[in-house]
Amino acid sequence: MTRARLRDLGITIGTLPTGPYNAITDVLGVWVGHCTLIYDEPRVARTGVTVVVPREGTIWEDNAFAGFHSFNGCGEMTGLPFIEEFGLLTSPIAITNTNQVGLAHQAIVEYGVDKHGGFAFKLPVAAETYDGWLNDIDAFHLRAEHVRRALDSARGGPVAEGNVGGGTGMMCHDFKGGIGTSSRLVEVPGGQYAVGALVQTNYGDRSLFRVDGVPVGREISPAHTPTPWGEPAAAQMPAAQTVAAQGSIIVIVATDAHLLPVQCKRLARRATVGLARVGGVGHNGSGDIFLAFATGNHLPAQVEAPLELRMLPHQFLNVFFDAVGEAVEEAILNALTSAETMTGFQGHTAHALPLDELQRVMRKYQRAA
Amino acid sequence: MTRARLRDLGITIGTLPTGPYNAITDVLGVWVGHCTLIYDEPRVARTGVTVVVPREGTIWEDNAFAGFHSFNGCGEMTGLPFIEEFGLLTSPIAITNTNQVGLAHQAIVEYGVDKHGGFAFKLPVAAETYDGWLNDIDAFHLRAEHVRRALDSARGGPVAEGNVGGGTGMMCHDFKGGIGTSSRLVEVPGGQYAVGALVQTNYGDRSLFRVDGVPVGREISPAHTPTPWGEPAAAQMPAAQTVAAQGSIIVIVATDAHLLPVQCKRLARRATVGLARVGGVGHNGSGDIFLAFATGNHLPAQVEAPLELRMLPHQFLNVFFDAVGEAVEEAILNALTSAETMTGFQGHTAHALPLDELQRVMRKYQRAA
Amino acid sequence: MTRARLRDLGITIGTLPTGPYNAITDVLGVWVGHCTLIYDEPRVARTGVTVVVPREGTIWEDNAFAGFHSFNGCGEMTGLPFIEEFGLLTSPIAITNTNQVGLAHQAIVEYGVDKHGGFAFKLPVAAETYDGWLNDIDAFHLRAEHVRRALDSARGGPVAEGNVGGGTGMMCHDFKGGIGTSSRLVEVPGGQYAVGALVQTNYGDRSLFRVDGVPVGREISPAHTPTPWGEPAAAQMPAAQTVAAQGSIIVIVATDAHLLPVQCKRLARRATVGLARVGGVGHNGSGDIFLAFATGNHLPAQVEAPLELRMLPHQFLNVFFDAVGEAVEEAILNALTSAETMTGFQGHTAHALPLDELQRVMRKYQRAA
Amino acid sequence: MTRARLRDLGITIGTLPTGPYNAITDVLGVWVGHCTLIYDEPRVARTGVTVVVPREGTIWEDNAFAGFHSFNGCGEMTGLPFIEEFGLLTSPIAITNTNQVGLAHQAIVEYGVDKHGGFAFKLPVAAETYDGWLNDIDAFHLRAEHVRRALDSARGGPVAEGNVGGGTGMMCHDFKGGIGTSSRLVEVPGGQYAVGALVQTNYGDRSLFRVDGVPVGREISPAHTPTPWGEPAAAQMPAAQTVAAQGSIIVIVATDAHLLPVQCKRLARRATVGLARVGGVGHNGSGDIFLAFATGNHLPAQVEAPLELRMLPHQFLNVFFDAVGEAVEEAILNALTSAETMTGFQGHTAHALPLDELQRVMRKYQRAA
Repeated sequence: MTRARLRDLGITIGTLPTGPYNAITDVLGVWVGHCTLIYDEPRVARTGVTVVVPREGTIWEDNAFAGFHSFNGCGEMTGLPFIEEFGLLTSPIAITNTNQVGLAHQAIVEYGVDKHGGFAFKLPVAAETYDGWLNDIDAFHLRAEHVRRALDSARGGPVAEGNVGGGTGMMCHDFKGGIGTSSRLVEVPGGQYAVGALVQTNYGDRSLFRVDGVPVGREISPAHTPTPWGEPAAAQMPAAQTVAAQGSIIVIVATDAHLLPVQCKRLARRATVGLARVGGVGHNGSGDIFLAFATGNHLPAQVEAPLELRMLPHQFLNVFFDAVGEAVEEAILNALTSAETMTGFQGHTAHALPLDELQRVMRKYQRAA
Repeated sequence: MTRARLRDLGITIGTLPTGPYNAITDVLGVWVGHCTLIYDEPRVARTGVTVVVPREGTIWEDNAFAGFHSFNGCGEMTGLPFIEEFGLLTSPIAITNTNQVGLAHQAIVEYGVDKHGGFAFKLPVAAETYDGWLNDIDAFHLRAEHVRRALDSARGGPVAEGNVGGGTGMMCHDFKGGIGTSSRLVEVPGGQYAVGALVQTNYGDRSLFRVDGVPVGREISPAHTPTPWGEPAAAQMPAAQTVAAQGSIIVIVATDAHLLPVQCKRLARRATVGLARVGGVGHNGSGDIFLAFATGNHLPAQVEAPLELRMLPHQFLNVFFDAVGEAVEEAILNALTSAETMTGFQGHTAHALPLDELQRVMRKYQRAA
Repeated sequence: MTRARLRDLGITIGTLPTGPYNAITDVLGVWVGHCTLIYDEPRVARTGVTVVVPREGTIWEDNAFAGFHSFNGCGEMTGLPFIEEFGLLTSPIAITNTNQVGLAHQAIVEYGVDKHGGFAFKLPVAAETYDGWLNDIDAFHLRAEHVRRALDSARGGPVAEGNVGGGTGMMCHDFKGGIGTSSRLVEVPGGQYAVGALVQTNYGDRSLFRVDGVPVGREISPAHTPTPWGEPAAAQMPAAQTVAAQGSIIVIVATDAHLLPVQCKRLARRATVGLARVGGVGHNGSGDIFLAFATGNHLPAQVEAPLELRMLPHQFLNVFFDAVGEAVEEAILNALTSAETMTGFQGHTAHALPLDELQRVMRKYQRAA
Repeated sequence: MTRARLRDLGITIGTLPTGPYNAITDVLGVWVGHCTLIYDEPRVARTGVTVVVPREGTIWEDNAFAGFHSFNGCGEMTGLPFIEEFGLLTSPIAITNTNQVGLAHQAIVEYGVDKHGGFAFKLPVAAETYDGWLNDIDAFHLRAEHVRRALDSARGGPVAEGNVGGGTGMMCHDFKGGIGTSSRLVEVPGGQYAVGALVQTNYGDRSLFRVDGVPVGREISPAHTPTPWGEPAAAQMPAAQTVAAQGSIIVIVATDAHLLPVQCKRLARRATVGLARVGGVGHNGSGDIFLAFATGNHLPAQVEAPLELRMLPHQFLNVFFDAVGEAVEEAILNALTSAETMTGFQGHTAHALPLDELQRVMRKYQRAA
């Protein structure tokens, strides 16, 4: 089945224009890198790691303001006490599977030590979602070299989506999910800015899945149900299992605007809007944690004098909020339209969102020609 | 124009059953009272106060667990430091206009002193949204006796919606807004529970307004635009003005389930889902603050021994989260379908959501017969 | 009994220099005003209101960055959702008694409407502690005109301490408490700044009271015990009563430094250090809420273009943290050494901290000559 | 130099009685384990890991309520989004050095997978402080087997303090620091409970160091200054360096009381009081993060029905707050009186707090016989 991005299917989300790549990399200097692990022996791997590298890798020396929001904290994102206290992002971000967020964390520290020695910042951001249905997660496939490979390969421009990097084994609304991205351009007095989102999607019930408000999930034929698919009797499972059953979504929002930490937090919170529009409710076992950073101001790690900053007034932020909602909504949908059907651990098969059926449903509801 | 509740129009939100009144009063013991002030002399009043009274008024002696979420804090809800620290709701809740949240606060304290003397709790919850476009808000119409009237008249059963109480002069998605309510029944191992929401709506752009995902706001004819209606050039206005321009939404969620404070906070956060589905983004000047309380456990204010409690495991909460999303979405829509066109301060007119156009649009998009 | 400030007694806290007034007014443009109500008929009044007015009253047009910390939230400080969201202080601050924080809130709104019309910001900060042991608090003595009087009389220079304004009827460590203030001067690369604190003290057990680490509370003779003084059997009282029994402390920290909101929050959190040094534990019924604002940057309420700001790097903040700890510690002690013995409601008498005994104890422990 | 616990020196903190071990292990079922790494080749190791294992290791199946407070977030404690959302501690806690908190995290996950298979909870708590002055931290000495060794060796009873486990290479107030612990017994209507604290201390300026209020730090002879010791010009260093320069403190508070999550958070916040009394200010580079858990209620990970709980009313908590303040204060001091002089990385020497000088100073200030 040929995959596509949502806009290639003639479906548009919102009204703001996208950047040239319709990706988080439309924010100047933001790079994305993936390392994807797919093999069946000795144990089944359907996993990987995705990194978001601000400022073309100079984020270690030139920090960025940041803020976060935990919509449902059944997940891990490290570095949050630091971000809450300082409002700063100081190193690249890694997203991987639940079991290995610790490995990813240490791998970034090691990378920093190698590249920056004693001056490396050592409280990085690593996040996770759970791929244990398709990936033999307890095999701990990821190694530090994979994180390094993702970091070394990170670049701007088009971003691979779907079954790549940390998103390799992820599911979304009971379809195959994974990595997705999108962007918006906004204009306010004083300048034009880009807002980009990258998501690792692994959440959601099919029945709640919507595309631009259309209840697509309810209309897809059962042929696309994951197999074998029992009722994930969440109520009878320990918390650990509900992670497996219900998944999570990590959202990274980036902008080149001159925003303060308190404003980054406001942007992070708006990721909830995009998620809710697609059908996310923040179910019990979902780790729905959102990080936003803004590169407009330069915050040197080594500094001997007060810093001169620029700040967009709060009154200018509405269009940024709209942009986050739109970009997150579209990034999730891009993950779904890009991801391919995958068979993995224990013969489990997650089906790709069928694009023909998607278009049929959109037409049925008068939302496509 | 005859008004109706959403379901009377054949439009259903979600899949969970409602309680008998489809109102927050479906939660046993929860009462609602309004005091509505509409007059033109000496200064134009289009305001009032709405109270939510848990436990048939015995909330002072028998507290309830509670938690809150501020989605966009350009608003006031008093009592939040106490609720964050203790996880308790200890008195009735009042919702009124922005200028008089302080008056409402003191009025509840006075009421408590009258009724409960030195044992009255004195850190109550009072919240607000801004009705200054239809109401001459700087006339400070509300007096303590109005709050008392609302408290004394509070009762269970059907709840008046639209242009009543605190919602009298409010707007929503550039239509006439106000008070709305809805409820859901949920079943989990161990029992059936009710989840109710009451909203005071005063937020939103018309272009973003959706009903069950259908972009209704974009399809309504300009005849229903508020008059006179200039471009509210938010970017050029101080924060105070953006309050006026962009409004707010207060959401009260109630349940009779055996939830702990940390779980009430989870429920409060899900009000965001219902809001986002209708088209809320949490714009800059919006005070979008959500409170949830749970009456399943009894927490006597005077206590000399440890308390015995019941707790629904977190794994049971998904259906509660779904219920909050649905009930908040429908409560907002009920406010809109119930509120009537109103002319007020400076001749401003806010038009009711035209129900015939609503149904036409729903049919156009194959969402109604 | 002649009262004095702590330093007049030869007792010094910490090592940083104070500003010329050793008061919050050492922060350029910060004014303080009190309105004190003391009378016996028709009902006993020992209460009032204290206001802190940044920027010589132009705070409405020229906002300041701000942040808060709730160490123990059994109290009220309004405006916190706004400050959390925007990081801005936009109007004067009022501190009064528990019952009338709502009145104080509305009084500031009315004042803003009078002075600034429709552009007035309407989500002000009003805070409280409980004076119901000395003041007939349920008589609701405070009126809006008193708040206005405090605002109109606010000025820079020396600040009246002890039994004045909001502190009139307050107690501290079972002595007479009230209003206290102190300041420190700090120097970092790029400039010298002032850090000031103003406290309204109404918390604490005598046995825990310390002066510069010396256990003074345990050494004071029982003659200074409040009368009549029963065991405030807190465990048997409802939450409302524990407010009365255990009191609270409101701390306002001001600085003219170029700090961002996230840094103001860091300063606010350090008020805990000063409080803990004197013997505060944040007991159950205590409303220990701390607000910090920084006037270094100018944030016009009406703005049409991006703002240019300055920021002190986080690495410069240690001396600010030290300054907050010292200034809060000394401000509390100034409240105690300044407040005079007071007899009030129901014949209750709160005794002043006996300065001769204080000095005797300090000498005993080799901490004074 | 023979080391001792504080009480062995005749110095008592506070008034509440300790448990039999004066250790966190006085809380029934709480175990502590250390793995200590001290060697010079091939690279200098002065590090390790300390684990706190609730419920004799059955915490995976029988969770405990928990809450946290970040007093200064320049540090890492994983698992916080989960604890904030669920109020649950679900696995053992590990504390190690800054670089390897990720390794410790994954090691706990691996341990859980080994012991509990697919039902293992995978969002554990791992925390850190920075030992890079004595330990060649960039050698990444810790391996998963060390964490496993600490877990397997964990037990109740007396707890080794000072240069052990995660505390091996830590410093405190410019003396040799490390692990310390203490406990208190409290009595409230309904029962007697234990409150224990374990700290990994690595923070603080010498000049601020106090013992029971006595300014000991200022009185210790310069002979005990770390060597070589330059002025750590924090202001000129990047954030990473300030971590090295200024250190951190992790506090774990445990109790067997029937507390809810919201109450655990209250306890965690009181660790600030003990820290402030000893001289902590939460300096810029300090990661001062506090976790509290309560084992009174049993929260099975697998559950099919509502849970029956007990809750101590908030009004009972004052003595718990006092206990946390005292136990944290004494635990820090125990770390200092127990830790021995250590020479490590690059020939750096951190001196033990000289106990004879300590006693001399306490006598000088009339605080010891």
